[in-house]
Amino acid sequence: GVLGSGDFARSLAVRLVRSGFRVVVGSRNPKRKASLFPAAAEVTFQAEAAKKADIIFVAVFREHYSTLCDLADVLVGKILVDVSNNTEINHHKESNAEYLASLFPACTVVKAFNVVSAWTLQSGARDGNKQVLICSNNQEAKRTIAEIAQVMGFTPVDMGCMSSACEIENIPLRLLPAWKIPIFLALGLFLCFFTYNLIRQVIHPYIREQKNKLYKIPIEVVNTTLPCVSYVMLSLVYLPGVLAACSQLYYGTKYRRFPDWLDQWLQHRKQIGLLSFFCAALHAVYSLCLPMRRSHRYLLIETAVKQAMEKKMTVWVEEEVWRMEIYVSVGIIALGLLSLLAITSLPSIANSLNWREFSFIQ
Amino acid sequence: GVLGSGDFARSLAVRLVRSGFRVVVGSRNPKRKASLFPAAAEVTFQAEAAKKADIIFVAVFREHYSTLCDLADVLVGKILVDVSNNTEINHHKESNAEYLASLFPACTVVKAFNVVSAWTLQSGARDGNKQVLICSNNQEAKRTIAEIAQVMGFTPVDMGCMSSACEIENIPLRLLPAWKIPIFLALGLFLCFFTYNLIRQVIHPYIREQKNKLYKIPIEVVNTTLPCVSYVMLSLVYLPGVLAACSQLYYGTKYRRFPDWLDQWLQHRKQIGLLSFFCAALHAVYSLCLPMRRSHRYLLIETAVKQAMEKKMTVWVEEEVWRMEIYVSVGIIALGLLSLLAITSLPSIANSLNWREFSFIQ
Amino acid sequence: GVLGSGDFARSLAVRLVRSGFRVVVGSRNPKRKASLFPAAAEVTFQAEAAKKADIIFVAVFREHYSTLCDLADVLVGKILVDVSNNTEINHHKESNAEYLASLFPACTVVKAFNVVSAWTLQSGARDGNKQVLICSNNQEAKRTIAEIAQVMGFTPVDMGCMSSACEIENIPLRLLPAWKIPIFLALGLFLCFFTYNLIRQVIHPYIREQKNKLYKIPIEVVNTTLPCVSYVMLSLVYLPGVLAACSQLYYGTKYRRFPDWLDQWLQHRKQIGLLSFFCAALHAVYSLCLPMRRSHRYLLIETAVKQAMEKKMTVWVEEEVWRMEIYVSVGIIALGLLSLLAITSLPSIANSLNWREFSFIQ
Repeated sequence: GVLGSGDFARSLAVRLVRSGFRVVVGSRNPKRKASLFPAAAEVTFQAEAAKKADIIFVAVFREHYSTLCDLADVLVGKILVDVSNNTEINHHKESNAEYLASLFPACTVVKAFNVVSAWTLQSGARDGNKQVLICSNNQEAKRTIAEIAQVMGFTPVDMGCMSSACEIENIPLRLLPAWKIPIFLALGLFLCFFTYNLIRQVIHPYIREQKNKLYKIPIEVVNTTLPCVSYVMLSLVYLPGVLAACSQLYYGTKYRRFPDWLDQWLQHRKQIGLLSFFCAALHAVYSLCLPMRRSHRYLLIETAVKQAMEKKMTVWVEEEVWRMEIYVSVGIIALGLLSLLAITSLPSIANSLNWREFSFIQ
Repeated sequence: GVLGSGDFARSLAVRLVRSGFRVVVGSRNPKRKASLFPAAAEVTFQAEAAKKADIIFVAVFREHYSTLCDLADVLVGKILVDVSNNTEINHHKESNAEYLASLFPACTVVKAFNVVSAWTLQSGARDGNKQVLICSNNQEAKRTIAEIAQVMGFTPVDMGCMSSACEIENIPLRLLPAWKIPIFLALGLFLCFFTYNLIRQVIHPYIREQKNKLYKIPIEVVNTTLPCVSYVMLSLVYLPGVLAACSQLYYGTKYRRFPDWLDQWLQHRKQIGLLSFFCAALHAVYSLCLPMRRSHRYLLIETAVKQAMEKKMTVWVEEEVWRMEIYVSVGIIALGLLSLLAITSLPSIANSLNWREFSFIQ
Repeated sequence: GVLGSGDFARSLAVRLVRSGFRVVVGSRNPKRKASLFPAAAEVTFQAEAAKKADIIFVAVFREHYSTLCDLADVLVGKILVDVSNNTEINHHKESNAEYLASLFPACTVVKAFNVVSAWTLQSGARDGNKQVLICSNNQEAKRTIAEIAQVMGFTPVDMGCMSSACEIENIPLRLLPAWKIPIFLALGLFLCFFTYNLIRQVIHPYIREQKNKLYKIPIEVVNTTLPCVSYVMLSLVYLPGVLAACSQLYYGTKYRRFPDWLDQWLQHRKQIGLLSFFCAALHAVYSLCLPMRRSHRYLLIETAVKQAMEKKMTVWVEEEVWRMEIYVSVGIIALGLLSLLAITSLPSIANSLNWREFSFIQ
């Protein structure tokens, strides 16, 4: 049974029907709404639907939960599935599922399917996350809903008892929260270093020697900016660990909580490190592209022609040669090591390492 | 207990013995077959084996299930593990496990171990997939088999109730079904564009100016072909979404099923996108290799010598310089963005994103 | 309840208190130790704590388990969680958890939390592995502990019955055991080939022609060494499969165990293959860096100047051109294929392939 006739209720009915379940939809206005549901689903009044079904998906807003109280008698002993989401993180004091459970103490409430979008329900789980997080205080009910999710083509994940409902309800509202600060940080650093390098490599030669070096902006200036950003970000990964150690030495205990800003910083280390790796990888690609450019080619030919006209045979500067050889080879080794760090931060690799191995690699 | 004396039965007995279980094998001809099994396994007649064991692996073909009906009395209340596979997808109307359950209503049937090859069983789960998918209508039996699988070195995965058996039996028959069409599509596009570029870059100059440019085939022609393929594939990723939206606008409802061809296309988007990324990455590597080639070196020297002999100092063409700088820098940014898309399509990353984050990145 | 006052006991108490649990700590010297625990945790005598708590974390060393025997009466029917680790792999004959269960037959023993470090407990599971492996012979107790782990921010993983305890206790002692031999092998091969290439490319020309080619060491010598290592490692991946097939042909059976060295070798194939890919990828990056070096630039200019002074227009050697074009293009294709192999060895990808698909790709 599905109570409600909104977007999610319809998508749910579509998927349930396609997965071979018999579906009865409870609506306050069944006649007008029937045409919106698939033909195989029976659309009737709420009380009627609640009577007929054993498992009832409550696809109405939290605000209207209380309007279902008339159905309390019919619902006794049945499984209510709370699929609702909030519009804000931690909007209400108790989770929607716990609120539903308090309204219908004679029912078994299961939280599920809220992490799935109406579109995914409708079209089937194609790509992206196929997981359906499920929690309930009743093992049997949880298992039943898990099996329905399996048949519908999703991967049920047991999230334990009802106290996880709040966490599950917050998940769909998340938009890469751990990435916001690190990305703004990286953009800020990029802007600063870009301005500095622009002044140094383009504006300064123009003012002093009237040389037009504007062509350097898209590649050379960006390419000297990226490793600066990467270095600063990498140092920001290791700095908070040092600060935390100092704080522990100062207070003489390991069991004191870190100040909030340090705690936040410690939590963003992984993201800062990955952005540092991303900048380093881009720098590598930019550097490799340098000899591909026309400007490189023209400068080379011009030098050769100049040398030939001056009848100079030797251009070899041993110091310059060594500097470049060592720059390049140290750069490659650093990138190789950073790649290892980036690979171990993939969830499936990190889960196969114990903490000793993880710390060793870090 | 293991019923059967085929390849899979022997591998199963080998692994069970090595994992420390007491194994009794039931064969129709125990004397002749005993030498094929490890010494620690007792090989006897089927009825004898069925009597002695509590958990019985049925390692015989579906066609011979009915020959086991004589053992029905001895098997009452025992756990039968169906390890069978089919030779074709959806070969029979009901799954082998459900057929076995219908023959032995007094037994508890569990589907398991069919996704594992005889070779993996024999040599232990080394690399590749260590999962054993298990389904049954009896929770207790499912848990027992899961624990046996764990001891044998596999990772048991609960697939819910018996209705999943059909799906589990189809898994080992799959051979990258979602990749077939996208790969043939990519090969077809590659051939078309390769022929076009071959004519343009090699055959045409030969016919018109008698210039031998054959050396361009392995790298330059391939390198101009790859981005064409990549672009067309990328547009094929986004086109079906637009068509789907048009279809919804035309029919005025979101709840109408898409035509089959569009549905198929929507389902292959991820694979087409990954192949597009693969072509783009190859194009990047090919482009980076361009200045490494002898031909590039020779052409450069020839230009320099020519310029020197004509006493021309300036070869700089501002427009050419800018064109290349912008090509290269836009290419790098595009590759960086495509890499992000490719990384989020890794299963372990996709599972850690909610649908809002996934859509945002896409 | 937490029995013990060591580092792990304190971290456990900190995390439990922060996750909202009521914690009572049992210590032999509660007065002196109380200051080490968070204020919200009640620190008292062991017997007192054991009486008050229903779930008791036993955070004392295995050697002191017997000192807890006085508490046997108070502990009847309670859940004991064994969080202990060993200092050596397979140190004792039976696992710590099984030993604890034998001392307290009237309690339910659960093995859990030993794979988590004290630091992770204290600071919360931030990055790295968030899994807590749990095993017990009692389903209900296992589920209770799994729910506590969930609330504490970890991902509980059901590892089946008590017989897995030994395996779980060995996990934190592991330090990339499968990588040791392959890494030493790669380093050994690298040293051999590096010496050979050093003699050939630097020392030999110096002795014979007094030419200083020392600048070749950091990049060119390393770059000719890497593909040699990569090739030998790749052949070592496929060789043991051939040897295994020969051994099966020779003994006429597939069910004979391989000799230990071959078995070890077969088990390290994945790691050897990944190191081979790592060397190949480094070789690709080194090769791409070649035209970026000053030495390359200088040699090019010198050749151009020499040609210009000798008035030679043509430097084109068709054979050299073709050799390089083919080298480069075959190298790119080989690297592309190796990348596919490396990607399918990611755990989350490997788990989504059946054995047929996995063998096909390999």
